[in-house]
Amino acid sequence: MTDPREEGRSLTPRYDRDGLITAVASDAETGELLMLAHMNAEALALTLETGTAHFWSRSRQRLWQKGETSGHILHVEDVRIDCDQDALWLIVRPAGPACHTGRRSCFYRRIVNGALEPVDAHG
Amino acid sequence: MTDPREEGRSLTPRYDRDGLITAVASDAETGELLMLAHMNAEALALTLETGTAHFWSRSRQRLWQKGETSGHILHVEDVRIDCDQDALWLIVRPAGPACHTGRRSCFYRRIVNGALEPVDAHG
Repeated sequence: MTDPREEGRSLTPRYDRDGLITAVASDAETGELLMLAHMNAEALALTLETGTAHFWSRSRQRLWQKGETSGHILHVEDVRIDCDQDALWLIVRPAGPACHTGRRSCFYRRIVNGALEPVDAHG
Repeated sequence: MTDPREEGRSLTPRYDRDGLITAVASDAETGELLMLAHMNAEALALTLETGTAHFWSRSRQRLWQKGETSGHILHVEDVRIDCDQDALWLIVRPAGPACHTGRRSCFYRRIVNGALEPVDAHG
């Protein structure tokens, strides 16, 4: 028995109880994971329409275009959705550091023996 | 002003109101995003301890080792955490298809003109 959500061609995102879906962005060139954020239906529509990543800020409770103030826009090459349509993968070309700390990626530390270590000097 | 959560060496995951943190797994070799799931503190501890990915199933409300029945275990090479410590990135070597549909990755469809298209014949 096939599940139409898993095998079909219809886009039917499963938003959570807050109306959000998780989206992760990775670098089209290096494959590096850059950031994880959330989208509501409007952010997804704007992302598809403009080709630049838009998210819903849970802390600020508003829509934002990534890079709207910093200029570090994420140009979206591909948007993929997972089997049960509750997660999105954006393959992007970043116009600058994706992390608000100024780092290329938000994932600049690894867990080693229960503590955090920088991934690399430029990470 | 630096935020100790962002710049420090202490592992202080920010679990959500359900006690969960989002974790994404990508293939160490190809960089492909394989799956997105959730961990509670126990799943994270077991993942770090055993070197194989464990998650919390929200639908079944129980801890599971990825591949416990299929054998398609994810061997974890690196666990990274993001700036505000509310997301994890697992860099893994999969022992088989990561998706329960039998596909290598759960992200086997892309959004094109509002509909879904298979990424590739083997995707």
